Amino acid sequence: MTKNFKGIAASNGVAIAKAYLLVDPDLSFEKTTVTNVAAEQARVDDALKASSDDVKLIKAKATESLGAAEAEVFEAHLMVLADPEMSGAIKQKIEDDKVNAEQAVKEVTDMYISMFDAMTDNEYMQERAADIRDVTKRILSHLLNISLPNPALIDEEVILVSKDLTPSDTAQLDRQFVKGILTDLGGRTAHASIMARTLEIPAVVGSEKATVEVSSGDLVIVDGLTGDVIVNPDADTLATYQKKAADYFAQRAEWAKLKDEKSVSADGKEFIVGANIGAPKDMQAVLDNGSEGVGLYRTEFLYMESDHLPTEDEQFEAYKAVVEQMGDKPVTVRTMDIGGDKHLDYWKLPEEENPFLGYRAIRISLDQTDIFRTQLRALIRASAFGNLWIMFPMIATLSEFRAARKIYLEEREKLEKAGVATGEVKLGIMIEIPAAAILADKFAKEVDFFSIGTNDLIAYTMAADRGNDRVAYLYQPYNPSILRLINTVISAAHKEGKFVAMCGEMAGDPVAVPLLVGMGLDEFSMSAPSVLQTRSLMKKLNTADMKVLAEKALDVETNDEVIELVKKATK
Amino acid sequence: MTKNFKGIAASNGVAIAKAYLLVDPDLSFEKTTVTNVAAEQARVDDALKASSDDVKLIKAKATESLGAAEAEVFEAHLMVLADPEMSGAIKQKIEDDKVNAEQAVKEVTDMYISMFDAMTDNEYMQERAADIRDVTKRILSHLLNISLPNPALIDEEVILVSKDLTPSDTAQLDRQFVKGILTDLGGRTAHASIMARTLEIPAVVGSEKATVEVSSGDLVIVDGLTGDVIVNPDADTLATYQKKAADYFAQRAEWAKLKDEKSVSADGKEFIVGANIGAPKDMQAVLDNGSEGVGLYRTEFLYMESDHLPTEDEQFEAYKAVVEQMGDKPVTVRTMDIGGDKHLDYWKLPEEENPFLGYRAIRISLDQTDIFRTQLRALIRASAFGNLWIMFPMIATLSEFRAARKIYLEEREKLEKAGVATGEVKLGIMIEIPAAAILADKFAKEVDFFSIGTNDLIAYTMAADRGNDRVAYLYQPYNPSILRLINTVISAAHKEGKFVAMCGEMAGDPVAVPLLVGMGLDEFSMSAPSVLQTRSLMKKLNTADMKVLAEKALDVETNDEVIELVKKATK
Repeated sequence: MTKNFKGIAASNGVAIAKAYLLVDPDLSFEKTTVTNVAAEQARVDDALKASSDDVKLIKAKATESLGAAEAEVFEAHLMVLADPEMSGAIKQKIEDDKVNAEQAVKEVTDMYISMFDAMTDNEYMQERAADIRDVTKRILSHLLNISLPNPALIDEEVILVSKDLTPSDTAQLDRQFVKGILTDLGGRTAHASIMARTLEIPAVVGSEKATVEVSSGDLVIVDGLTGDVIVNPDADTLATYQKKAADYFAQRAEWAKLKDEKSVSADGKEFIVGANIGAPKDMQAVLDNGSEGVGLYRTEFLYMESDHLPTEDEQFEAYKAVVEQMGDKPVTVRTMDIGGDKHLDYWKLPEEENPFLGYRAIRISLDQTDIFRTQLRALIRASAFGNLWIMFPMIATLSEFRAARKIYLEEREKLEKAGVATGEVKLGIMIEIPAAAILADKFAKEVDFFSIGTNDLIAYTMAADRGNDRVAYLYQPYNPSILRLINTVISAAHKEGKFVAMCGEMAGDPVAVPLLVGMGLDEFSMSAPSVLQTRSLMKKLNTADMKVLAEKALDVETNDEVIELVKKATK
Repeated sequence: MTKNFKGIAASNGVAIAKAYLLVDPDLSFEKTTVTNVAAEQARVDDALKASSDDVKLIKAKATESLGAAEAEVFEAHLMVLADPEMSGAIKQKIEDDKVNAEQAVKEVTDMYISMFDAMTDNEYMQERAADIRDVTKRILSHLLNISLPNPALIDEEVILVSKDLTPSDTAQLDRQFVKGILTDLGGRTAHASIMARTLEIPAVVGSEKATVEVSSGDLVIVDGLTGDVIVNPDADTLATYQKKAADYFAQRAEWAKLKDEKSVSADGKEFIVGANIGAPKDMQAVLDNGSEGVGLYRTEFLYMESDHLPTEDEQFEAYKAVVEQMGDKPVTVRTMDIGGDKHLDYWKLPEEENPFLGYRAIRISLDQTDIFRTQLRALIRASAFGNLWIMFPMIATLSEFRAARKIYLEEREKLEKAGVATGEVKLGIMIEIPAAAILADKFAKEVDFFSIGTNDLIAYTMAADRGNDRVAYLYQPYNPSILRLINTVISAAHKEGKFVAMCGEMAGDPVAVPLLVGMGLDEFSMSAPSVLQTRSLMKKLNTADMKVLAEKALDVETNDEVIELVKKATK
């Protein structure tokens, strides 16, 4: 039966494929009495063997996609599966109690789990209990002949359907097979959505009921352009969406032709369309998509993917690699934004009631200046190899910017006195705290540039954590209050002849781009796969018309009214 | 030796008295061998008796100040002290091991504590372990002849010195004896500070080192006007501060004369100076201080001090009591602001990563409308008995205000159809989320009034949790970004002929009042003891001069510059 429902369009494109449900299946069974003990014991051996094969495959894929350290958990699973004591106990139980293999597995593993669980002060034993739980599910799934889903095991074209996707799920996705993503939870800025856009996999998230409405094997259409989902479509609908998918592919091919062109509006005004990165390895997509700059290099990943505070030389190499690849094009590097929801294993920060309103980013850098100075030295040294801009995150007051600039100038002077090669550097701030946006006229006199970080700016301005589903309705990028703040920042910067970029999700959003062109934003920085689409959109926009549109949008009352205005003006 | 240091001036006035340290004393001792077993056993009896006397006294005082339920813990302590099994075991140990009473007490109570502690899944037993820990401290203090501090035991004039003060500590303070408060931690808006102002006890908080620098019995001067602390002053200094204390008393007497006057600027402009309350019991201070209104009735305390969701009738009685006492004067009642840091035992809300950016206040009311409708009905019924205004907290968007108003109108219509008496009600919103402040021009067309809640507005605008010491430096009420938002709100309201109040800490702050008079704020609502001082300050201010001052303040760069400007203009 055909079903239709809607979610949030989170990654462009149309995907049509069979559903693969990444949800825990029902592994319940009846306890039965067996007569052929040997045959039942053989079933146990088969299930253990099949489970080991699964885990080995998952481990190999996880090592490739996540790294050896992350894949270690699967080694522990293999050890459990190979444990002669456990398999012996299971077989003994079949013999003693004449129960089916499922029952024997459950009783024996339950016994181990409760034994380990009881050791509440021993973290190692608690982890072993978790391992046994995982492995038991897998053994039972083989005994019951129910397939236990795992992204690493997908070997045909599918739409992945799940409640939510964890970072480790998405890291294991194989683009060759996963054609679309459909989830119950999350919004456009959830981790899964950002990953889907980076991998260019069409996605609809936050559908609330995908895992209930869709069964494994159903044919599913995921329209990542509109948020529409159709399950088991009729022939006409299928044909319509097949055409839409083909059209979208054709459009992407059209966009690809813009790779070496400039980003210019219909009336000839030039903009910079750049890309956001987290590490040098992201540069391939930046170059493939003809980005005119790196508008945001999130350096905290250097800290998060390391097991120690990255040294000056480690940082220097990373920054140098990026600026060298970009040549003359500007690379805006944000000093580390640790804290909030970004933690380091090797450097514990205090627990906080409200980490998003707490000790993070520049607040840490100005407090623990050794770490900040190390990063600044690495950046100043890298500036000799390209066009490097430095940006401070979470600036709330001019005093903070002045303190950060002072430290930067001190380190620069020390390096220059020591004869180290340096290049020209522009010094700017993220505008992501309302106080800084409101006082942009004063900041504009002292900084070289602004970069508006809309994700946090929206969260603070609306007083709503965008990761919290209960208040997700308040994440309103087009709310006139947000647009007014953005307009204030752009006007203030231009009055002082300064440059304004935007590096939040909004910069690549087709509803926002016309408004931002109208306000005169200089640089739009986004995930690399959105660059060409944005360039294509800009070619159709007339700046004078967009200025009128933006002025209208600044004077309406709600987010929805702005969406209506933009749709009418750009249709 | 004289010592000087500084903290944060948190409650006005100057106090001079001996220090009473509310910190855990050192109760360590040596294990010794005793020969006179009977004498040692008698020491145990004496210590148990003295401890019981203490606890009975504390219990009596706690019952009076906190209520019988809160004082129950002391009943448990008395039971421990009267337990013949425990005292028997202690005496037996003295006889068997020939150890001193301290050692015997410690060994026996340790044994009980570890026994109860081991029952990790039994909350009752864990609480018993905590009781025995508390009681052991008290017994040891008597054996060692070291006094164990407790606010309820103070019976002479003192300056209370502690790391921090809990709500239950402050509830037990006796104004007759506690002349001043001095703490290591906290800021102007901490609970202890608000309580000190309510009780009119001079206080200096956040001194960082008071408990280290001050010893019990030291003569201490606490200057709650400047934040200065002087320990063991010389004769000249003492005389100077005695005069300052006397002057401040004289000034308070002068202010008291303004009780029945209007709040008028030097050039004759009238303002409303109101008070904030949490419950009908706070009305005495409101009336004593000649408040011209209740600018904020925090109804969440009705929910927090109950063991069930307050019924419509319970709420009606509370609201009616307040509006009746105020007569014609306006009473602004805020619908419940649960969530954030305000929790209810009987109604669990979800755990959140960032509760201040989460599910709270109007967000809950619009989601769980039954609770909201009950409160609105109680308010509409109470409106027949006075001048009642209703205000919605945490409004971020116009859609939220419209949804809340719709529910209000529905309930009002139902009550009127049922023939229930109602009065005229003004409907307004708190301005505490930056988005609402920025869009105040649009809100002003639909609401009857605004009330600016500066505590949260500052926290969101600066992206800093004011309860987090690490980012406390960002709680900057005079930051020009905050002043600009406030000015935007006042101008937008007046353009539509609407009324603007302020009910945050800032409304009674002598640095802020001149600026707010200059911006034309209509109502200033604060803790009751600040009302007359603010009225007195207003009499000295000329609105035209203050307008010029405010315009200057809106155009400077930092919080400190604004303080300088105000000081220069009002000295």
